[in-house]
Amino acid sequence: MAFSPLVKQLIEALRVLPGVGPKSAQRMAFYLLERERDGAQRLAQMLSLAIKQVGKCEKCRSLCEQPLCAICENKNRDRSLLCIVEGPAHLAAIEQTGGFHGIYFVLTGHLSPIDGIGPEDIGINELVAVLEEGTVKEVVLATNATVEGEATAYYIADLVKSFNIQATRIAHGVPMGGDLEYIDGGTLAKALADRATV
Amino acid sequence: MAFSPLVKQLIEALRVLPGVGPKSAQRMAFYLLERERDGAQRLAQMLSLAIKQVGKCEKCRSLCEQPLCAICENKNRDRSLLCIVEGPAHLAAIEQTGGFHGIYFVLTGHLSPIDGIGPEDIGINELVAVLEEGTVKEVVLATNATVEGEATAYYIADLVKSFNIQATRIAHGVPMGGDLEYIDGGTLAKALADRATV
Repeated sequence: MAFSPLVKQLIEALRVLPGVGPKSAQRMAFYLLERERDGAQRLAQMLSLAIKQVGKCEKCRSLCEQPLCAICENKNRDRSLLCIVEGPAHLAAIEQTGGFHGIYFVLTGHLSPIDGIGPEDIGINELVAVLEEGTVKEVVLATNATVEGEATAYYIADLVKSFNIQATRIAHGVPMGGDLEYIDGGTLAKALADRATV
Repeated sequence: MAFSPLVKQLIEALRVLPGVGPKSAQRMAFYLLERERDGAQRLAQMLSLAIKQVGKCEKCRSLCEQPLCAICENKNRDRSLLCIVEGPAHLAAIEQTGGFHGIYFVLTGHLSPIDGIGPEDIGINELVAVLEEGTVKEVVLATNATVEGEATAYYIADLVKSFNIQATRIAHGVPMGGDLEYIDGGTLAKALADRATV
């Protein structure tokens, strides 16, 4: 009632953003209209442009506007080492560590039978095509350490082994800098079970 | 490095939103590109449309796409009672209480001499024009209870009184439902000083 129709529609439209409720959307709308019309204009343009041009890399399925992404194009990456992640944000997180020099395959999330999300929905058919090429020697399963992420990792591990390719899983345990007093029991149990000789 | 140029630019553009840092912007960009292209398209359209069409009400200076906003157009509002707020979000908050039936005047924030923001920057000249019309009998100062909001209220109170119009300030004190144990000293002191006979 206190907002004009157009302002109300902008507030509604902003709620499409993840983590933005009615109050934040209202704050964003007022901020943009009162102080950042240039930035809002640029955001509108970038949204339109990105929606039109950004697609998926034909090989690893990460987001990019070229047929192949920069990582798949890079001749210096180890093509025998394939890391599987649940989404592009996870790919970015692993890249930021600087410790991985192989290539990636980006799933569309994880398996979730309860929501009707099966293997073909997360891109397993495309993964099979990559494995059939025969260059991959090891698949690193870097799905989340959640129930769904673990289930997805197990499913893919079975698939990978059927191609006689080695499947590995990223380590679970106490985070670096973590205080044992505040670590949950499940993590600590896993850390104990997976202890390594030093 | 891990993002394609267009994705990187979209992430940068999203950071114009208040309260959105690099991590949230990244999450938003991926979410929109992966799952909400329709919503993102609609957001882009609404941003462009709102920037083009939403201006300020000629009378109260709240955001609207018509020359006059719905409140200023409404013949049932009490035009002798003028409430002054720091921004459209505050107008919305007061409207939502349903307890105010006068009209509004929306400042562009508050006075802040240290940032070079003086009376003409927050719309005092336009306020004077409203006061000169002679219909307003009482001005309710509903600026924030911050140092700047208080200073702005005092400044406007002086101005209002020079027109022989009554100036009132919204009450400060213990919030409804508030536990005295957790109220800050300043608020409690103010609540004591402004105590009323029951």
